[in-house]
Amino acid sequence: MSAIRIDGATRLFGIVGDPIAQVKSPELYCELFAAAGMNAVLVPLHVLPDAFDMAMPVLMGIENIDGLIVTVPYKARAARFARRLGPTASRIRAVNALRRETDGTWSGDMFDGAGFVHAAQRKEETLRGRKVALFGAGGAGSAIGCELAAAGVVSLCIIDPQRERATALAATLHDAFPSCRIEPADALPKSVDMIVNASTVGMRQGDGMPGEIGPLDPRTLVGDVIISTEPTPLIRHAMQHGCRYINGRDMLAGQSDALMAFFVRG
Amino acid sequence: MSAIRIDGATRLFGIVGDPIAQVKSPELYCELFAAAGMNAVLVPLHVLPDAFDMAMPVLMGIENIDGLIVTVPYKARAARFARRLGPTASRIRAVNALRRETDGTWSGDMFDGAGFVHAAQRKEETLRGRKVALFGAGGAGSAIGCELAAAGVVSLCIIDPQRERATALAATLHDAFPSCRIEPADALPKSVDMIVNASTVGMRQGDGMPGEIGPLDPRTLVGDVIISTEPTPLIRHAMQHGCRYINGRDMLAGQSDALMAFFVRG
Repeated sequence: MSAIRIDGATRLFGIVGDPIAQVKSPELYCELFAAAGMNAVLVPLHVLPDAFDMAMPVLMGIENIDGLIVTVPYKARAARFARRLGPTASRIRAVNALRRETDGTWSGDMFDGAGFVHAAQRKEETLRGRKVALFGAGGAGSAIGCELAAAGVVSLCIIDPQRERATALAATLHDAFPSCRIEPADALPKSVDMIVNASTVGMRQGDGMPGEIGPLDPRTLVGDVIISTEPTPLIRHAMQHGCRYINGRDMLAGQSDALMAFFVRG
Repeated sequence: MSAIRIDGATRLFGIVGDPIAQVKSPELYCELFAAAGMNAVLVPLHVLPDAFDMAMPVLMGIENIDGLIVTVPYKARAARFARRLGPTASRIRAVNALRRETDGTWSGDMFDGAGFVHAAQRKEETLRGRKVALFGAGGAGSAIGCELAAAGVVSLCIIDPQRERATALAATLHDAFPSCRIEPADALPKSVDMIVNASTVGMRQGDGMPGEIGPLDPRTLVGDVIISTEPTPLIRHAMQHGCRYINGRDMLAGQSDALMAFFVRG
C-alpha cells in the first residue's frame, strides 16, 4: 500500500452520503491516487438530507476539491448540480460522480452500472440473454438497469416498494432499449436467471433480503450493490444455493478504472 | 512518521484559508492524530472570500467534521460562527480554531498568541519586561498582542496600514492590561527590543519586510508568524544582525499541544 501524505497543496476528492462510515471508496481511491503519483486524497463527507442542497454548491466551490463521489441516498438529487451530464447520467437523471472541468464548471456521470457490468466481465459472467429481476429503481438501480439493457439482457423486471419509481424507470429504459422486455413488477417473477439487488436493503444490520426469494437454481447469477465486510443476506442466500455472484466490492473495483479516468482527466 | 489511513469512519478536521497551499497544519496534525491513535486527518480547505460565509455553516454541519483551524484572512470573520468563545477569542473577537461540542454546538478559541508565547518559552526567550513593536492588528496580531501583554511586556506599539485597526486593538488591550503601555503607531519606534510581524507581509514571493526596519541590536528578539520554507525577509534581517528569532514553524509547534487538547477533548 502506498503511503498517504496530506499537505497544504493536497487536492481533495470526497464521497458524499448518509450514512458514511461503511463506504469503501476512501481506502480504494487514496491508494489509486497515491499509486498514480498524485498529491490527492478522497475523504468521507457525511452530509445529512436537510443539508444536502446547501452543501453541494459549497463543496463544489471549495477551490481544492476536484471531484465528488455521490452515494446513497443522493445519486438522483446530485444530478441537478452538474452543468453537463454524461450519457448514462442524462438518461437516468442520476450521478454517482462529479468533477470540476478546467473552465471551473462541473460535470457529472453515473458509473454504477458500468461498474457492475465491468465486474461481471472480470468474473467472466455472461450477461447477454439473461432474464433479470432488479430490486431497486433508485440511482444505482437505474444505472445498472440501463447498462444491463445495453449489455443485451433479454428481459428486465424492476421491483421497488415505490411502484411508480419502477414504472417510470421501466418506461425510460423501454424507450432507450426497445428490444429488451422491460416492465415493473410487485414480486420476483419465476423465470429469471439473474437477480440484482440495487436497493439499500442489506446495508443496515438486521436487514433481510430485498424481497421474497425462494430456492435458487445454481445457474442464477446474483448481484448485490451493498458493500459490506460480511456477505449480505442475498449474497449468503446465493452462496447457499451454489450460485455465482457479484458483490458490492466487485462492483467498486469494476468501476474504479472508469472513475479514475473521469477524475484524473479533469 | 506514522502512517495515515482514510476510510469511511475517518473523522475530519480542516484548515480553512485563502491561499491554502502554503499551510503546514495538515502534515503536523495528521501526524499528531495518527500518533494519538485517532482515525482522523486534517485536510486543507481552500475557501474563497465570497464563499466563506456560506461555507462555514455547511462545513460545521458535515457530521464527520469535528474541528476547523481558521487561517488568513478569516480569523476575525470566523468568530461569529462559534456559539461560545474561549477567553482570548472573546477579548479580541477572532478565532483560529473551532470544535464541535458533544451537544452538537460549536465553540471557538484563538491559539495564535498562546502558540507564540509557548514557542518563546521553548526557546527560553524572556518576554517579561520587553518593549514590543507589533506589525499587524488582524486576528493573529490581536491574539499575539493579547498574550504578550498577559506575559508581562512593558510596552506594546501596534503598527497597521489600517490605522483604525491598530487604534481599536490598542484600546481593547489597554482596557484588559492597564499596566502595559499600549498604543498605535505609524512606524517602528526607536526604543523597542522586540519586533513581531503578525501581518501577512512575507507570505507572498517578493514581499519585503512589514515596515521600515533599520539595523537591529542583537539583543532584539524577532518574531514572524509567516510559515515558509525559506526565511522571510524579516527573519533573514534578524539573522543578519545576530538576533534570536521565533518563526512561523516555531509558533505552529508551540500551539500544537493546546490545539490538540482543544480538538481531542471535544
